[in-house]
Amino acid sequence: MERHLDTQIKGIKESLIKMAGLVESAIDKAIRALKDRDVDLAQKVMDEDGAINQLEIDVEIECRSLLARHQPVAVDLRFVMASTKINNDLERMGDHAVNIAQKALALGKSRPIKPYIDIPYMAGIVQSMVKDSIDAFVEGDVAKAQNVCKNDDVVDGLEVQINRELITYMMEDPKNISQALALSLVAKNLERIADLSTNIGEEVIYMVEAKTIKHHFEDVHIKK
Amino acid sequence: MERHLDTQIKGIKESLIKMAGLVESAIDKAIRALKDRDVDLAQKVMDEDGAINQLEIDVEIECRSLLARHQPVAVDLRFVMASTKINNDLERMGDHAVNIAQKALALGKSRPIKPYIDIPYMAGIVQSMVKDSIDAFVEGDVAKAQNVCKNDDVVDGLEVQINRELITYMMEDPKNISQALALSLVAKNLERIADLSTNIGEEVIYMVEAKTIKHHFEDVHIKK
Repeated sequence: MERHLDTQIKGIKESLIKMAGLVESAIDKAIRALKDRDVDLAQKVMDEDGAINQLEIDVEIECRSLLARHQPVAVDLRFVMASTKINNDLERMGDHAVNIAQKALALGKSRPIKPYIDIPYMAGIVQSMVKDSIDAFVEGDVAKAQNVCKNDDVVDGLEVQINRELITYMMEDPKNISQALALSLVAKNLERIADLSTNIGEEVIYMVEAKTIKHHFEDVHIKK
Repeated sequence: MERHLDTQIKGIKESLIKMAGLVESAIDKAIRALKDRDVDLAQKVMDEDGAINQLEIDVEIECRSLLARHQPVAVDLRFVMASTKINNDLERMGDHAVNIAQKALALGKSRPIKPYIDIPYMAGIVQSMVKDSIDAFVEGDVAKAQNVCKNDDVVDGLEVQINRELITYMMEDPKNISQALALSLVAKNLERIADLSTNIGEEVIYMVEAKTIKHHFEDVHIKK
């Protein structure tokens, strides 16, 4: 029985790693599509989102099956609960990458108001956050998870800075406004992905350390 | 045993209803704070978010406790899985209300560039979506859940319309740009809350009908 539980846990981990890889790649492609005004690549991001959605369904099925078969407790239960949330978070990240690709598609037709430097830089940090949050989850690495949470502030700062610069472009020429607004939404999507990575980081910290909540939970649990 | 399970399910439902009520009220206050340039009210939204966060922790504990005690299957398992997700969604909605309150605080100092009509209208629809999605969950009402999902398109349309109007204000006078950008982010926060309500609606449909996924899941389950 225990061996089967471990196999299922391993399978869920592998699927989440795969999903995170697809999400990273989607962000990377969406940002390249924006930068190189490559509408085909933007379209590709949209087409490939289905694979992320399918993995979400698969992981959800696996988690429910694990709960029904093994009635896990303690660390295993926390693992499954964390997995369902992380699964959800990754799927939402995929949606944000699609939103960026949609903007890339719309902007691909017009001459860029500025060279894209800050946004790809921000995207690079966000991609590492996605990767690190899943590594932290798989390895149960609290320090790495905490690091992801710290990076969230860096990304928030970058979003503010990008918006500030975009405002100057808007003020310079009203013709820049709608393009600048689109870029501001790209930055917002990246910031949301960073937020979701931070959620994963927090989930990992709870899963491993079972702080505060665990204490309360065991109180409830003891009354059984 | 069964009686205790039912009591726990009832308790989780009540907490989620309470959370949804707090979220609706937070949205309402944040929008009124924006409209009336009432910085005290904006501050209140931020102060009161702690209660939503505490409820999230409580519900999470209850869900884990229910899983550990009762090893629920079928509809009860789907209920618990749905509850943990809805719990998360509601907490995130609270964060979006706080974001709106922060904008209200920032904008409270400057003269509004336009009378706020569309944003409160959008907020009204979003508040009903929050309420309806939780009602649908509590009552297991698929038709109501589907209706929430349909309203998401209305909200998306309103966001586009609001942004289009804001662009005209920006073009009219560059001094309007930073205020218009802030309002655009308020509309984005409302749109995100609508999205999260739609997630809840989808969760309810799955919980009640156990479509597609259920089929796969039972395949897996049978092999037990």
